[in-house]
Amino acid sequence: MRRMRLGTIITVSGSHGASWLHPTSPRDGAFNIQRLIEGARTAEAAKLDFIFLADSLALQGISLEAQSRTANFGVRLEPLTALAAVSMLTRRVGLVATATTTYNEPFHVARKFASLDHISGGRAGWNLVTSSTETEAQNFGRSEHMPHAERYARANEFADVVMGLWDSWEDDAFVRDVANCRYFDPAKLHVLEHRGEHFRVRGPLNVARPPQGHPVVFQAGSSGPGMALAARTADCVFTAQPDAAKARAFYREMKDLARKAGRDPETLKVIMGFNPIVGPTQAMAEARLQEMEELVHPMVGLGLLSMALGVTIDPAVHPLDGPVPDLPLTNSSQSRQAMLVETARRENLTLRQLALRQVNGANHNFAVGTPSAVADKMEELFATEAADGFLLAPALIPLSLREFTDQVVPELQRRGLFRTEYEGTTLRENLGLPRPQVGIARRTAAPASA
Amino acid sequence: MRRMRLGTIITVSGSHGASWLHPTSPRDGAFNIQRLIEGARTAEAAKLDFIFLADSLALQGISLEAQSRTANFGVRLEPLTALAAVSMLTRRVGLVATATTTYNEPFHVARKFASLDHISGGRAGWNLVTSSTETEAQNFGRSEHMPHAERYARANEFADVVMGLWDSWEDDAFVRDVANCRYFDPAKLHVLEHRGEHFRVRGPLNVARPPQGHPVVFQAGSSGPGMALAARTADCVFTAQPDAAKARAFYREMKDLARKAGRDPETLKVIMGFNPIVGPTQAMAEARLQEMEELVHPMVGLGLLSMALGVTIDPAVHPLDGPVPDLPLTNSSQSRQAMLVETARRENLTLRQLALRQVNGANHNFAVGTPSAVADKMEELFATEAADGFLLAPALIPLSLREFTDQVVPELQRRGLFRTEYEGTTLRENLGLPRPQVGIARRTAAPASA
Repeated sequence: MRRMRLGTIITVSGSHGASWLHPTSPRDGAFNIQRLIEGARTAEAAKLDFIFLADSLALQGISLEAQSRTANFGVRLEPLTALAAVSMLTRRVGLVATATTTYNEPFHVARKFASLDHISGGRAGWNLVTSSTETEAQNFGRSEHMPHAERYARANEFADVVMGLWDSWEDDAFVRDVANCRYFDPAKLHVLEHRGEHFRVRGPLNVARPPQGHPVVFQAGSSGPGMALAARTADCVFTAQPDAAKARAFYREMKDLARKAGRDPETLKVIMGFNPIVGPTQAMAEARLQEMEELVHPMVGLGLLSMALGVTIDPAVHPLDGPVPDLPLTNSSQSRQAMLVETARRENLTLRQLALRQVNGANHNFAVGTPSAVADKMEELFATEAADGFLLAPALIPLSLREFTDQVVPELQRRGLFRTEYEGTTLRENLGLPRPQVGIARRTAAPASA
Repeated sequence: MRRMRLGTIITVSGSHGASWLHPTSPRDGAFNIQRLIEGARTAEAAKLDFIFLADSLALQGISLEAQSRTANFGVRLEPLTALAAVSMLTRRVGLVATATTTYNEPFHVARKFASLDHISGGRAGWNLVTSSTETEAQNFGRSEHMPHAERYARANEFADVVMGLWDSWEDDAFVRDVANCRYFDPAKLHVLEHRGEHFRVRGPLNVARPPQGHPVVFQAGSSGPGMALAARTADCVFTAQPDAAKARAFYREMKDLARKAGRDPETLKVIMGFNPIVGPTQAMAEARLQEMEELVHPMVGLGLLSMALGVTIDPAVHPLDGPVPDLPLTNSSQSRQAMLVETARRENLTLRQLALRQVNGANHNFAVGTPSAVADKMEELFATEAADGFLLAPALIPLSLREFTDQVVPELQRRGLFRTEYEGTTLRENLGLPRPQVGIARRTAAPASA
């Protein structure tokens, strides 16, 4: 039977752009590892598959005024060190972190995730992304970010090198045979000798094969090259799909691409971003949303909207209570820009309303209601194959996360949709994913570079 | 009063090349974080200043035959993730890891150590090294390692960028002022805007200023450029000095260089590598050493010696029981080659004897004897200003480490040389080092690039 997968974003105060201002938010800062540990333990107590730490390698490219008024502008602990710490105080929950292929070296990324997988007993997951902001480029010697095609060509090769490095040692290579003085069996060491267009990496990796074989690979690109990369290399695809019909079309397309790549489509899970606001009654859930909206500083809303649209919105030119204007094409995420403009036109939203949605995190699928109504929505999306599972983006942490785990998870369990106990000890086992064998890659060849 | 500083290398089975073969060595592998945690707790119970995880980004460049017969060939957990995990189960001991400036980006290194510093409550230390092996180069797109001068020019600029990034935010920048909707004070954010010969890094770092201001910087180069870099940027210098007179000369030179760089020489600690083999009697300590030597596979001794000398020794050409031959100049560490050849000639060692010293770790200062005799040697080296403290390289872990902490540390404490309680909560406080202020760098300008 198909079971729903559930992960949650963990941040210090929540995904909502005004989360830090809420009376229930922690007052002791964004750099206190205890807050992340508490979030992870809440997720684990509810048997969630994984926690996820998003990341960027720069502050978000919004004005200093906007940055200084929100906690969600890209300042946070480095996720791999944070998850290694979290792993010591949790036992089963998966530990997923973003690491970009654009401003990293595959050897470092392969080693860090292999190490986290050993430290955590097989719970590591890598969210493979490409970087598309100028603020990140400028921290790595570039003045402009890498063009889309080059980013994805590099990402494809990067993924191959990382997976090749994870296969440097067979699972039983370290024999520690004292009698014959063999610490490892030389026949079970494989030197990668990768020579590609973007990378030359000899190998082997200087860490044993990860407990999971390969840490679970997540990916979020929804452009053509992004979906092709995911079909070839990912175990799970994150996707932001506010519209259910479009989500189902994406789901079908993703599964078809996996099939065409020679894979069992069951081994590629589609995980939809989901933002639940739960209340004892519909009215109380809506009141919570309104309470959050009232906390939003106008500069923050506008800043986050400008960033999502990829162009700066000047309220002196385009009044906040007027319609969404025609915009120049962004050099950042074009699919996100198009989705937002289309949503605004379809629903007749003003710029202010669109900005609030951005702060609310409503570019994810959004549900405001009773636990039973939220579960209904999740069940429908799951049953109609709009998603295999959900990545929660709790507006407030700890509050919204706890409301979800205390009230919605038991409802999903009662309906037989979600586990009541972890099935295995590794993230891969809990997600129902096969363990890759050394050298028998599930991957087809990478596409020729653009 | 001047107090002795003590740190210890932690590995899974010890620093001796045959450590894994000893009957007391753990049998459950090099990738079990619990072994590192136990070592760290042993160090912390004895009030040691810090543990140190050495690192390389490749296997050691010895033959596969030799690699496969020792645990000490460069395969290990990634040290930053490992230390983040260790930090959760320790409270006071410092956590020092190697990260190279040759195959890293300063933004990543600054962020990881800042993050570890936050996670550990101010206990992070960075051992800043340059990489000089071809096996590392080949994992990062190069066929040969970087020439010495270029490596050090890059290292100097790298250190400046990292320290600049650590100063991105003033200590009290994150005001979290709910009433005025200010998460941080924009006046307390400093954008680095570094544009140098090797790096262009805009900043700011997306982590708050580390609790220690700057994590403690360690450095180990003993060439001219290495010492100049340390005088300018390091808090502690690791040094391998088997000869006490030469150690005193190095100590004086290092302190002079610090003074010339405008620093109080007390703020630069010289930490000597030290390898204690302790026994209830002198004869029993010597028997332990001999027991270890007998465990050494000849291929391992020869492999480690060839690596240290930077040239391959072929026993068919140069008999193991003959003298050390004239050698071609290495392209790796020339000072280490010269030191080893000189030692062999002075003490009339055969190749086999020199190889055994290598496996024993005798390129560090070496002491074999009773707890009191070992303490005598340490006291003399400390009192005569050969060193401000010691980095232990225990032959066996846990055994040699525990023998040292159980027997030698109490002796050092009785003599008033070593603390009985931690003085502070951060590594910097315990080492008696000042906390750097933002922007008031203790550094002089970097030398012009070679």
